[in-house]
Amino acid sequence: MGTHQPVEYANASSEVREVYDDIMATRKTDWINNFWKVLANDPVTLRRTWESIKQIMAPGALDPLTKEMIYIAVSVTNQCPYCIASHTSSAHKKGMTDAMFHELMAVVGMANETNRLASGYQVEIDEQFKTS
Amino acid sequence: MGTHQPVEYANASSEVREVYDDIMATRKTDWINNFWKVLANDPVTLRRTWESIKQIMAPGALDPLTKEMIYIAVSVTNQCPYCIASHTSSAHKKGMTDAMFHELMAVVGMANETNRLASGYQVEIDEQFKTS
Amino acid sequence: MGTHQPVEYANASSEVREVYDDIMATRKTDWINNFWKVLANDPVTLRRTWESIKQIMAPGALDPLTKEMIYIAVSVTNQCPYCIASHTSSAHKKGMTDAMFHELMAVVGMANETNRLASGYQVEIDEQFKTS
Amino acid sequence: MGTHQPVEYANASSEVREVYDDIMATRKTDWINNFWKVLANDPVTLRRTWESIKQIMAPGALDPLTKEMIYIAVSVTNQCPYCIASHTSSAHKKGMTDAMFHELMAVVGMANETNRLASGYQVEIDEQFKTS
Amino acid sequence: MGTHQPVEYANASSEVREVYDDIMATRKTDWINNFWKVLANDPVTLRRTWESIKQIMAPGALDPLTKEMIYIAVSVTNQCPYCIASHTSSAHKKGMTDAMFHELMAVVGMANETNRLASGYQVEIDEQFKTS
Amino acid sequence: MGTHQPVEYANASSEVREVYDDIMATRKTDWINNFWKVLANDPVTLRRTWESIKQIMAPGALDPLTKEMIYIAVSVTNQCPYCIASHTSSAHKKGMTDAMFHELMAVVGMANETNRLASGYQVEIDEQFKTS
Repeated sequence: MGTHQPVEYANASSEVREVYDDIMATRKTDWINNFWKVLANDPVTLRRTWESIKQIMAPGALDPLTKEMIYIAVSVTNQCPYCIASHTSSAHKKGMTDAMFHELMAVVGMANETNRLASGYQVEIDEQFKTS
Repeated sequence: MGTHQPVEYANASSEVREVYDDIMATRKTDWINNFWKVLANDPVTLRRTWESIKQIMAPGALDPLTKEMIYIAVSVTNQCPYCIASHTSSAHKKGMTDAMFHELMAVVGMANETNRLASGYQVEIDEQFKTS
Repeated sequence: MGTHQPVEYANASSEVREVYDDIMATRKTDWINNFWKVLANDPVTLRRTWESIKQIMAPGALDPLTKEMIYIAVSVTNQCPYCIASHTSSAHKKGMTDAMFHELMAVVGMANETNRLASGYQVEIDEQFKTS
Repeated sequence: MGTHQPVEYANASSEVREVYDDIMATRKTDWINNFWKVLANDPVTLRRTWESIKQIMAPGALDPLTKEMIYIAVSVTNQCPYCIASHTSSAHKKGMTDAMFHELMAVVGMANETNRLASGYQVEIDEQFKTS
Repeated sequence: MGTHQPVEYANASSEVREVYDDIMATRKTDWINNFWKVLANDPVTLRRTWESIKQIMAPGALDPLTKEMIYIAVSVTNQCPYCIASHTSSAHKKGMTDAMFHELMAVVGMANETNRLASGYQVEIDEQFKTS
Repeated sequence: MGTHQPVEYANASSEVREVYDDIMATRKTDWINNFWKVLANDPVTLRRTWESIKQIMAPGALDPLTKEMIYIAVSVTNQCPYCIASHTSSAHKKGMTDAMFHELMAVVGMANETNRLASGYQVEIDEQFKTS
């Protein structure tokens, strides 16, 4: 449906191929999903976005699966169908079980509910939360 | 600022006190934060919300700290100041280090960015994501 | 905090005063709230917005109090502090009881929760909902 | 498209069937929509969500149709296609006329507009709204 | 999928046709897109919405293409598929190049990211921003 | 209120100072706003965010003022008070007149309204928008 066609590897410039190669090597996979292939219409954004994601999603103080589940939490809150589908798939590949997914959804749903109760009731922030 | 005053323990009905007691016992704390004290103006919602949260945030396939960070991810995406303050405080108490918080924020920020790139470029969902 | 100062009646142009007068007459009140006084910095938007609201919020197939509660539901979902404060106040003046407010909040909270469960679980729309 | 298949009554466990039976009895209908059938992959969330909705959407200070329209207002603001389709259908079954739907949409649209004017112009909350 | 069928010109009342004629004349086009044809089920909202959009999107202190790009920025942030498709198409017709679209997307993505960093880190507003 | 204190230049590490110096040189200013000073608690995110913003907000196919107004449009839609205050201030410094700001707000408000009308009425995307 999109107005920008995905850029296939065969037709990609060398600067785009370089990013594609790094994505596949980093993710240990042999294909590129549509997000990157459409973003490749703008090689500058393709590279910047990939470099940022590569840095942010790498193992660190949080493990990659936890980061993937946080990504799902944001995508579900924002109602982004593409992002929900792609990151749910990624999380399963990184070891998310069905039980983990169900709990993730329960927390995301509940947080969206209490966010509105807190704002709707105009609850003031407790002093205790301001200094810790 | 809110139009509903917090219900203090001293003035609470026995049905409200019962919930307050369970909150303090479950959380091993001796105070109740404003969210619950304002919600106590409606004892039915107070009880239902607490019972749901107690069930959802208990240890399970995901540990309590991971759940707390998911709560923060949603609250930050929704821009709920009260929720950000309270759950960031809770997460620190459950062991979230500064390094973990920084990575959490980085993932939340990036997810909010790529959610819009995916929708703005009208990226179609890959077949691979529909069956896994 | 805002960069645009409220335009007080005493200092307002005749075209702004005309709108202020209509707001006070329509609402049977003798003061103008900050929203309109700040919007008055742009008399064109002031008039268009007021004319639209006046038309939309008038009694019709839905009564004014129901409309006011729908306004609150949207404002709470969007986390707009000014709008929550002003429309909650208006709704109370139009007869919203505390019991009604509590139920309104419960529905708004629940809807925000199930909205995310529906999208997170990628639920397909039932055929029955497409034709009715 | 979803990765979780709907759980049909014929294949459901007794604990899931019990919830399905209650949904059909409460709603006086003989079918279950996809939302519940997908949620049934997690019987704990299925039950908790249904019990909460049953309690919240029951007649009270607000009538069921008003609650259904508030549900639509939230779902439209959040842009949740499934929720818009299902709750619009439910509201029509509960007696929402076309005229009521049109006014509902007008209020929801306007509230989303003025929410942004209030925040964009950084309007300060009036003292009058803080104490009532 | 929608429950309201588009109102075609051939079947439209004279009051709806009058709006359709003005849309086509103003936009120098010979067709009406679905948004207006569905809105025509409520002639009052059709007229009010068109009159507002006509006034707002006319050339002024901002040129029509800049306004169209701002419309895209909002629609992408809200994840509204119809609005993204229609306003991206309109913007291209008004002269938006691919390079402009790519930069627009980059800014929208980045703004959505830093909005969450600012709220997640609970950054206080600088004094300098309050007085200018 | 935030739990992370701003990092002042005097106390900053050399790697943070390097970013601060680049911000001040690029923006031709002699002070750093709180957003960057709080982000400096995580030098990695500070640098990545600044490098991305510097690249994205530079003059290109779109001029810096247009980019700043797009930033405001997103921030207002997301209801981020800090971002609205800081980018409105920046836009004024880059030449945004009051007349431009008023039109910007009018477009943002209207887009938020029609986004909901399009989704609430479940309008289908026109064929014409899919191929252009």
